[in-house]
Amino acid sequence: MKGEIFDKQRVISFSDAVFSIAITLLVLDIVAPTYKELKAADTLQILQNRIPSIIGLIVSFIVIALYWVAHMRIMKYVSTINKKILRYNIFLLFFIVLLPFSTAFYVRGFMLKGPFAFYCFNLSAIGFFNYLLNIYIPKKEKGLTGITSVLAKYFKYRALIAFIIWVLAGIFAFLLPMFARLLFLFIFILEAILVKIYKKKLISEKTIV
Amino acid sequence: MKGEIFDKQRVISFSDAVFSIAITLLVLDIVAPTYKELKAADTLQILQNRIPSIIGLIVSFIVIALYWVAHMRIMKYVSTINKKILRYNIFLLFFIVLLPFSTAFYVRGFMLKGPFAFYCFNLSAIGFFNYLLNIYIPKKEKGLTGITSVLAKYFKYRALIAFIIWVLAGIFAFLLPMFARLLFLFIFILEAILVKIYKKKLISEKTIV
Amino acid sequence: MKGEIFDKQRVISFSDAVFSIAITLLVLDIVAPTYKELKAADTLQILQNRIPSIIGLIVSFIVIALYWVAHMRIMKYVSTINKKILRYNIFLLFFIVLLPFSTAFYVRGFMLKGPFAFYCFNLSAIGFFNYLLNIYIPKKEKGLTGITSVLAKYFKYRALIAFIIWVLAGIFAFLLPMFARLLFLFIFILEAILVKIYKKKLISEKTIV
Amino acid sequence: MKGEIFDKQRVISFSDAVFSIAITLLVLDIVAPTYKELKAADTLQILQNRIPSIIGLIVSFIVIALYWVAHMRIMKYVSTINKKILRYNIFLLFFIVLLPFSTAFYVRGFMLKGPFAFYCFNLSAIGFFNYLLNIYIPKKEKGLTGITSVLAKYFKYRALIAFIIWVLAGIFAFLLPMFARLLFLFIFILEAILVKIYKKKLISEKTIV
Repeated sequence: MKGEIFDKQRVISFSDAVFSIAITLLVLDIVAPTYKELKAADTLQILQNRIPSIIGLIVSFIVIALYWVAHMRIMKYVSTINKKILRYNIFLLFFIVLLPFSTAFYVRGFMLKGPFAFYCFNLSAIGFFNYLLNIYIPKKEKGLTGITSVLAKYFKYRALIAFIIWVLAGIFAFLLPMFARLLFLFIFILEAILVKIYKKKLISEKTIV
Repeated sequence: MKGEIFDKQRVISFSDAVFSIAITLLVLDIVAPTYKELKAADTLQILQNRIPSIIGLIVSFIVIALYWVAHMRIMKYVSTINKKILRYNIFLLFFIVLLPFSTAFYVRGFMLKGPFAFYCFNLSAIGFFNYLLNIYIPKKEKGLTGITSVLAKYFKYRALIAFIIWVLAGIFAFLLPMFARLLFLFIFILEAILVKIYKKKLISEKTIV
Repeated sequence: MKGEIFDKQRVISFSDAVFSIAITLLVLDIVAPTYKELKAADTLQILQNRIPSIIGLIVSFIVIALYWVAHMRIMKYVSTINKKILRYNIFLLFFIVLLPFSTAFYVRGFMLKGPFAFYCFNLSAIGFFNYLLNIYIPKKEKGLTGITSVLAKYFKYRALIAFIIWVLAGIFAFLLPMFARLLFLFIFILEAILVKIYKKKLISEKTIV
Repeated sequence: MKGEIFDKQRVISFSDAVFSIAITLLVLDIVAPTYKELKAADTLQILQNRIPSIIGLIVSFIVIALYWVAHMRIMKYVSTINKKILRYNIFLLFFIVLLPFSTAFYVRGFMLKGPFAFYCFNLSAIGFFNYLLNIYIPKKEKGLTGITSVLAKYFKYRALIAFIIWVLAGIFAFLLPMFARLLFLFIFILEAILVKIYKKKLISEKTIV
């Protein structure tokens, strides 16, 4: 029903639990060697065979950790959880839950275009609902919980960068495969630029992010 | 012992943890493709082969998420956890824990009647204990925690709708298989009607749900 | 170092998380049918083949749930977590973590004596550390947190019953296998007797358990 | 952005969740016997075949439990979570998440040098980030949250011991395999000595650790 308000503490602890379980389940995808493999190969070879799995674990671990940090960052400014925030949050968590599968799919077909594009689709879906939270919450709270209009813009662009880069990576997966796989580096570059632009403004407003 | 009271905070956080683990374990049922499958099929075909699994994930994810929301909704009005609430809650969690198995069973036998009926049985068992919580808590709290008699009725019927629809879906699984699979849509229709009926009454009582 | 005190809130939430994960992992042991099995057998037969797994899930679910309830019950009376409580608690959690394995072992060898005895050993180990917590905490708190000497005795015997019954079940597994498997029913009978004995005393003390 | 502060409660509950999930996932590595194995071997033989797995579970369980205790110990003295603490904490959790894989790898190649060295590498990586937290937090808090300079030194050396021992165990894995496997016992010996040295100083300062 409209106007309904949910327990913020529970929404946050449920989200934290989903983030933490998904991040820990990632390890299940790195298969322990069989006795046969242990006889045929030494430790370095066994680890070499798992390079795609290990890259997958590292990338997805960083992605989940960063979205969890983003979740902490924006939820700090929420006064009450209404139905819309709850819904966006549940969709966000759905794509977090899907990530261990996407990671495993991408890792198995490490050199293929399709699985990588699917992985990018998953990441951009997470990015999309994070973006929705980051534009809706400042609008809802109207500056009363400490989000100034400058901070709101900073949050918006920050969320937008990750979303767009993963969409682009998904598209370029088919056109320029190697470029697509390095595209995520632009997230860090663009975020660094964003921080540079907004730092002064935020300090002059005395807003500590 | 009768009259015993339990730590509400712990009961809620334990429940949240079980909900979140069950919802995240669902992804384990979508099997990552083998190298053999990756060679024989392209990404779209691989995803097509997983349509039952993905539908299973989506449906069960939504189901668990909605019962978690229902749990938040009713627990807001609980002052103390007595033995009866604790027991209903543990039974509810048992059938939440069972859901990843029921989902996998239903997904494997996607076109079969039996596995779908078993899945409906699991969902109606969750619905049943949710219903028990929704009728017992208003009775126990006697309006002192903010549940008016109108709100109590609204909660009761809301919980009843989902329970009855899943029981019916389980029965119709054998009589009208395709109809049974679409029956869950009635939950949303009936809930929309219920909201329409109770909205005015709840507003006139100044009860924000 | 002696005298060190730990964050009670964290110890409890960590314990709750371990209890809830172990209880949810139990479902992984009920294997979803393969396509081959689905073709050869109908739903009832498939479920019949899983009767040991389902019994294992139900029994271990109840056991973990009851020890979690016991944990809530005794921890309510703890003022501070010292090293000794922390240690007993970690040992208790170790045997909770082991339970999904013991359950799977017992379920696979459902009619065998050894696996059942191992399962009983696991349950009695959980019971043992629960017992240690139930005798140490009243001694440590010296009645200051609300544990009267009558209540302390009630807690002690209650914890003792479950421990002894599982030890006996493990021993009788080799002597009277069928009797051993029904022995756990005595836990409920003896607890009911215990409640009868202590109820009046506790009420006369105005101690609501 | 520099100066950003994160929700301490969420960082701690997320960490607790990761610790507890990793510690519980360890059990998945002890494989339940197949029906074939159950027919060919009795319970004792089956358990004997799992001695490496069980040792792996016990060692890794203790390791995770001890680092969780260390996490509780140091986090008690943190006033606010800044970016640096958050980052160290996320790296620490990464290597906690990796541990179920390292444990499985080490257990499968129980008598081999390489897998054991990899396991030691994982443990020393955990130890390294624990060490960074233990030297950074006292520096950041400047004694305001109760860490005296004596206590800071005690924390530093305590974290250093475990880190160095696991590095050494990794190196000796190739030179003196049997010695390397017993080296961890020095952690307990050196910590006992450390406690002896610092006990008086801490008591004279009235610092209860």
